[in-house]
Amino acid sequence: MNNIKLTIAYDGTRFFGWQKQATTENTIQHIVESALQKALGKQCELTASGRTDAGVHALAQVANFHTESEMPPNEILRLANEALPGDIALKSAEYADPRFHSRYNCKSKTYEYRIYNGAVRDPFDRRYSFKVTEKLDTAAMSRSAKLFLGTHDFLGFSSLSKSKKSTERTVTEADVICDGDFVILNFSADGFLYNSVRIIVGTLAEIGCGKRGPESINKVFTSLKREDAGFTAPPDGLFLKSVSFRESVV
Amino acid sequence: MNNIKLTIAYDGTRFFGWQKQATTENTIQHIVESALQKALGKQCELTASGRTDAGVHALAQVANFHTESEMPPNEILRLANEALPGDIALKSAEYADPRFHSRYNCKSKTYEYRIYNGAVRDPFDRRYSFKVTEKLDTAAMSRSAKLFLGTHDFLGFSSLSKSKKSTERTVTEADVICDGDFVILNFSADGFLYNSVRIIVGTLAEIGCGKRGPESINKVFTSLKREDAGFTAPPDGLFLKSVSFRESVV
Repeated sequence: MNNIKLTIAYDGTRFFGWQKQATTENTIQHIVESALQKALGKQCELTASGRTDAGVHALAQVANFHTESEMPPNEILRLANEALPGDIALKSAEYADPRFHSRYNCKSKTYEYRIYNGAVRDPFDRRYSFKVTEKLDTAAMSRSAKLFLGTHDFLGFSSLSKSKKSTERTVTEADVICDGDFVILNFSADGFLYNSVRIIVGTLAEIGCGKRGPESINKVFTSLKREDAGFTAPPDGLFLKSVSFRESVV
Repeated sequence: MNNIKLTIAYDGTRFFGWQKQATTENTIQHIVESALQKALGKQCELTASGRTDAGVHALAQVANFHTESEMPPNEILRLANEALPGDIALKSAEYADPRFHSRYNCKSKTYEYRIYNGAVRDPFDRRYSFKVTEKLDTAAMSRSAKLFLGTHDFLGFSSLSKSKKSTERTVTEADVICDGDFVILNFSADGFLYNSVRIIVGTLAEIGCGKRGPESINKVFTSLKREDAGFTAPPDGLFLKSVSFRESVV
């Protein structure tokens, strides 16, 4: 059995997210598994580093699968890409350690969120950014973003009502960058809860509009209540940018 | 009467080009005129610097219209943008000299053509570039592009079978730039014939693949025959980038 590791880019606009569902075939996992089946002539099941929600994009999602096929990874890459639609592409395919697991061995994930803050719409970025009309105070957003760094209970910054598993996560990067008319937010952590990045972005956008102060962030870490945080920013602006793994098994 | 000059950006993917047609409402001119009518409460007729073909994009098309309305340009901009779909945006609206005419006063136009030459598809650029799989010899393309500079009869580099008007044009910029996996071609001229930029790009792409030599360009300038030039590159990669005007009337 070979363990094949894939890096996958997708424009999430028209999909119901990564995860396979009984009620629709329009998920990225289902479509990539179908393409792999065409390439290999055998069914295979993908394990990804994590789900992405409906409408969320990926520059480099990582997933792996075990197969008895001896087809070289480069040939899998070529054939599967031929079978995939234009909005999903395998960027690489390679042999991984037999024990490598895209979710269990994930060390950290980086997400990018793009806010368009220009006066006039950009027709070319409408699917890949969230348009905020009010001029954002990006200095206040940048300072406030730093409050997410370190280890916190993110339950209040998630769409989970409760959780049996730990909701503590450690954030190692929380940057707000101005790039012309765009405000780019980058977050890295050992993991994010359901909708967490989008709620963090919504909260920071409200701080950027002067609708709330930075102290409200620590309040959510204490209360753990979703209603104390900001709105959930739309998926269009969100990109899973990279996934890193513990070295021993990659 | 006021003469209003508009700068317009559009993602041309789903449209049948700029020019109004009797058989479809799905043209950029028709949709912008409808939005202006909503904004002003009056019909108005746009004159653009030139047509763009079906599927071709614009970063800054220029068009003007005469109106009895006294609505300030900024208000026209705001209201028309509210009425426009996400893939068309007015970038600016301003008063122009009463004699200003977007087509007659046009001095030069610049087009950009984007070729994607990477090994693996980019899902985010699929509508905005032309994918060439063979590795392009961009040095040969760049040298050959220079042969277009100056004044030539471009009839052979057009989809016109013949023309009563002059088919001589003067090219002032013909650059081939490598940008990572992309090859960007920039052309400026006092005007381009029908499909001209796309045929020039197709010819340069064939030179980049080694399918023809640079001498074939001068051959087309002499024979004036379409069949001596290369294929017509698809519209997806083509952007009308800027339009400049004779100063006296802007």
